[in-house]
Amino acid sequence: MVRKAKKIFNDPRNVVPEMLDGLVAAYNGRVKKLDGVNAMARVDIPAGKVALLIGGGSGHEPAYHGFVGDNMADGAALGNVFAAPTPDIILEATRAIHRGKGVLYLYGNYAGDILNFDMAAEEGIEVRTLLVRDDVACGPVENRRGIAGAMLAVKIAGGAAATLDTLDDVVRVTSRALENIRSISVALYAGSIPETGEFTFELADDEIEIGMGVHGEAGVWREKMVSTDTLVDRMMEFILRDMPLQRGEEVCVLINGAGSTTAMELLIANRRVLQVLAENGVTVHECVVGSLFTTQEMAGFSISLMRVDDELKRYYDMPIRSFGWTKW
Amino acid sequence: MVRKAKKIFNDPRNVVPEMLDGLVAAYNGRVKKLDGVNAMARVDIPAGKVALLIGGGSGHEPAYHGFVGDNMADGAALGNVFAAPTPDIILEATRAIHRGKGVLYLYGNYAGDILNFDMAAEEGIEVRTLLVRDDVACGPVENRRGIAGAMLAVKIAGGAAATLDTLDDVVRVTSRALENIRSISVALYAGSIPETGEFTFELADDEIEIGMGVHGEAGVWREKMVSTDTLVDRMMEFILRDMPLQRGEEVCVLINGAGSTTAMELLIANRRVLQVLAENGVTVHECVVGSLFTTQEMAGFSISLMRVDDELKRYYDMPIRSFGWTKW
Repeated sequence: MVRKAKKIFNDPRNVVPEMLDGLVAAYNGRVKKLDGVNAMARVDIPAGKVALLIGGGSGHEPAYHGFVGDNMADGAALGNVFAAPTPDIILEATRAIHRGKGVLYLYGNYAGDILNFDMAAEEGIEVRTLLVRDDVACGPVENRRGIAGAMLAVKIAGGAAATLDTLDDVVRVTSRALENIRSISVALYAGSIPETGEFTFELADDEIEIGMGVHGEAGVWREKMVSTDTLVDRMMEFILRDMPLQRGEEVCVLINGAGSTTAMELLIANRRVLQVLAENGVTVHECVVGSLFTTQEMAGFSISLMRVDDELKRYYDMPIRSFGWTKW
Repeated sequence: MVRKAKKIFNDPRNVVPEMLDGLVAAYNGRVKKLDGVNAMARVDIPAGKVALLIGGGSGHEPAYHGFVGDNMADGAALGNVFAAPTPDIILEATRAIHRGKGVLYLYGNYAGDILNFDMAAEEGIEVRTLLVRDDVACGPVENRRGIAGAMLAVKIAGGAAATLDTLDDVVRVTSRALENIRSISVALYAGSIPETGEFTFELADDEIEIGMGVHGEAGVWREKMVSTDTLVDRMMEFILRDMPLQRGEEVCVLINGAGSTTAMELLIANRRVLQVLAENGVTVHECVVGSLFTTQEMAGFSISLMRVDDELKRYYDMPIRSFGWTKW
């Protein structure tokens, strides 16, 4: 018998619109749903602002649609669960947030998303696209998936789009952030698909998989359970091999829970990540620990580092207010 | 064979101090650990401020120790997992945060916590105690446990303690908040005990328990799985029977995840809670959806309402900055 998830839903085929209703309400008046499509926009986008649109499949809450708000994204296009938003959704969102200065599309490097965002981009509004490819488990950068490091990129892009006057400048700053973000994940248990209750992969009770993607895409290796410190050390090796950090360089850290992993485990992992960085003489500008990019009740976590300099810190330090991440 | 949890730890007997290291780091310099005890305090408590101390067992992160910060608690005393902090921890925390105006102890109504906080309170510093008893599943108010509604109480108490000049006034305002907070929970799956990996209770794959406490304390009834809307309607009946709301009254809403319940499920529940309130002519001042008070990877959620008037809204609306809840 196939093991099924135990969850509280109404109609499993209707989770996205119902979730979106609850999410828009949880923005407490700062964000509205767009008519007829699963997309949302800030209610107070200033005239003449460069616009930032993010999006992707649902089921990863609070990513992406939880990151619309002050100094964050201006809008989000939601696909069905683990599926890209369709071009009409993206196009409606683009039109809703455009204020005459063009729109930056920022989303993860997945084929379906690229296809649909590119179709929407051909509709007359000036659009530029940047892909998040932070997952160092996937080999060369063009193959890399967008995982939790995307949230750091959204933070920088949101700050840049709130501050800078041209789409070119926002693209330039966001590109610099993306070049300096690396992530690596570990999975313990799969999340399930809301519509069917079925889990997206199986791992034995004593196994973990390093580098597994957020939908269960194959990782780098499976192994037996290890301690937090051993695991973090291995994960940090992946990141630091790909982005060697010099003594005195500075990073922002995001320890992201995949869904059901406890804050306790994440905090203990955070402790070790900071120890490793200190041993390498790397300064931590800020660390964030939370479940910002999830895959339903998947267990596991990821480590993301963003190397920062004065320019990136200027945008990182800006106050933000959104469903999924608020900072002042 | 006893089913065991799959988690990433170092030494399961050492989770509390390691977690505390990671937590203090995640406060990014705003909170310090106290020497020799599992307690923490803000680094910048103003002179002459009424102090607010919260605390309880670990394992419920971000509660309680994630709610230290600006316009929130001044300090937190941490017990071992699911165990009250010992009197010496509470006493050290009390001394560290006292600024000459007395200390309010605010925590959940559990016998072990009461015993230990009361012992610490006899040490010469003026202390007042308020218990959170928001769980309407427990019969008369003196029997009620403190669950997620505690976070709303901490928000009000933190705002009052940052603003008002005397301990009496902070006690008065916080008491008003506590009188107007009600919560009810539902459990789907148990969380596990980090030290042993054992789960705290068992529920069948098609069963839920309404009113179950955060450590698996017996609830009101078990039943077969129902839809979100049916479940929320039943839960809201418990709350509204105990605290009838008149048309035109106003509430703050907290939909709290128990640990592994997805944001998607919480948001769909939020949607229905707001529908029920609208049907009753009750205005929502703000709704918050998140996992603020967890029990490891327990699945389930709670609904908390706080009836507010102009005075309570004044404190609720204050900006806050803490690990577990930031708002501006």
